[in-house]
Amino acid sequence: MNQQEQKQQDRQQSIRTLRELIGDIQTCMLTTHSAEAGLRSRPMITARHEFDGELWLFTHADDPKVDEIHQNPVVNVVFAEPKEDRYISISGQAQLVRDQQKAELLWTEGLDEWFPAGPSDPSLVLISVHVNEAEYWDANVKHFSDAVKALFFSSTAPRHDKLEWSQTES
Amino acid sequence: MNQQEQKQQDRQQSIRTLRELIGDIQTCMLTTHSAEAGLRSRPMITARHEFDGELWLFTHADDPKVDEIHQNPVVNVVFAEPKEDRYISISGQAQLVRDQQKAELLWTEGLDEWFPAGPSDPSLVLISVHVNEAEYWDANVKHFSDAVKALFFSSTAPRHDKLEWSQTES
Repeated sequence: MNQQEQKQQDRQQSIRTLRELIGDIQTCMLTTHSAEAGLRSRPMITARHEFDGELWLFTHADDPKVDEIHQNPVVNVVFAEPKEDRYISISGQAQLVRDQQKAELLWTEGLDEWFPAGPSDPSLVLISVHVNEAEYWDANVKHFSDAVKALFFSSTAPRHDKLEWSQTES
Repeated sequence: MNQQEQKQQDRQQSIRTLRELIGDIQTCMLTTHSAEAGLRSRPMITARHEFDGELWLFTHADDPKVDEIHQNPVVNVVFAEPKEDRYISISGQAQLVRDQQKAELLWTEGLDEWFPAGPSDPSLVLISVHVNEAEYWDANVKHFSDAVKALFFSSTAPRHDKLEWSQTES
């Protein structure tokens, strides 16, 4: 296996690991830069079943976070399940996408309350978060310090597919 | 009651509300600016019983987040309890504090694993997060959109005690 194939295989493994970790946590917290507040988070429903290195979220076009992402696409996504001591931090770049076909593919039941018109709702905007780095803490082991594992994708060239893998302790 | 007294009373009410919302969620996710990763989060144990408008967290002096806060003190703190559909976003300014007396006051059992030497551990640094703005979503009502409530402290002058209160829907 050459280096390129190895990287590709590592990437696929990272993606599977992250997908398993997210598991049944359907709601994440998306943190964006806000001119007024500094850093602001809000809960969002994810279309996780499609996770292939990018997270997809749904929002209304007139929501403040759309402007915030437009001004600064650097975001963080948290999945937290304190009752199971499971925490995931995803550092990424957000992109605003209008794509009705994609919205139909990613549609989940929970979204009906937000977009009664369904995936063809003209006010619907997709947020695609390209994962630069992901880190998780899972207390199947006792201490966070033992449990921390990092999935490093690429920290410099998020759109260049230079995905890497390493494990660190913090 | 004059305007000053009213603001003070509103502030105290906001603090009580936030304290109740955090409730038994002991672990929060702290998001900081990272030069390499963009925005990075990690789980942290809070000393919530002392919450009086500032959150206090414990860290080791050599942890990367200490440098990150030193470079940029703008942070976000998330408390998430997906099983109860309860989510809190706190926008704030972090400050690094070395104060053994304060550490003793804020000490909780869960910290023994991290600082075996206790609150007098020389590598212990306190992170004080001064709350600029707090927002929460609590699904005792069905929809997030119905549930969202915002506790606005001050968004411009976090150290000037100009704390305000308002409720918004997003």
